[in-house]
Amino acid sequence: MVSKIRDGTVIDHITPGFGLDVLKILGITGKAGGAVTAAMNVDSKGLGHKDIVKIQDRELKPAEVNKIALIASKATINIIRNFEVTTKKKVELPSTIRGILKCDNPSCISNSREPVQSQFAVIQREPIRLRCSFCGHIMEREDILKQF
Amino acid sequence: MVSKIRDGTVIDHITPGFGLDVLKILGITGKAGGAVTAAMNVDSKGLGHKDIVKIQDRELKPAEVNKIALIASKATINIIRNFEVTTKKKVELPSTIRGILKCDNPSCISNSREPVQSQFAVIQREPIRLRCSFCGHIMEREDILKQF
Repeated sequence: MVSKIRDGTVIDHITPGFGLDVLKILGITGKAGGAVTAAMNVDSKGLGHKDIVKIQDRELKPAEVNKIALIASKATINIIRNFEVTTKKKVELPSTIRGILKCDNPSCISNSREPVQSQFAVIQREPIRLRCSFCGHIMEREDILKQF
Repeated sequence: MVSKIRDGTVIDHITPGFGLDVLKILGITGKAGGAVTAAMNVDSKGLGHKDIVKIQDRELKPAEVNKIALIASKATINIIRNFEVTTKKKVELPSTIRGILKCDNPSCISNSREPVQSQFAVIQREPIRLRCSFCGHIMEREDILKQF
């Protein structure tokens, strides 16, 4: 359902149904201008269905790619220049997530005034499940999406 | 940036930047399945730029079309069957909006327990500006979007 872009980023193999969440993570509402396409629940050879996001004239920062990995662990990031894919890589979900998310437990020491960076262990990858390294609180995909 | 669908609805000539709001109005998050594409800020002959939304296997109800008219008064609705456009019509923004929206003024009589249907006069079309027929309160596009 989606054709080519000249320069920019194609985020492919997004977990079906999560393309709009990827836009949200990237702060894209459409109102800043710049061509953007989101295709949801399209047929995919490998996954049955998938979402795809194409962003004209923007290359993602590593911190943005790391956030996408949290909700779409099988996504691939393709950098396009002059209609050619110049870089293609899978997002990588590390086994420990540091600093990106806040623990949802208000009593967790990572939410106190102590200078403690948040830290979570990835205990399940798809859909994601995280355990806070400080208080043991479990965070699921919906909890994570609320922070973006 | 977007190619054809077999059966469904194409909402074309959406005010640029408002394609995701159209999805919101239609209750589309992508998580219910069904192929959906939103293209934002693509080139348009008539408008400079426009947004387009394509929804596989869904034909819009009149009430849904009326809501879209509130935020994208130049949109066209194309019903597609077997890759052919079978119906093409512009959305129509009436001069009076009845019942779709709530007045934002909590003291307005339309928000009391009286059996009064809300009513607004369209005092500007693009971007939309409405005046409540009961209390004179003005509602703008952002106020309207919050209700969907």
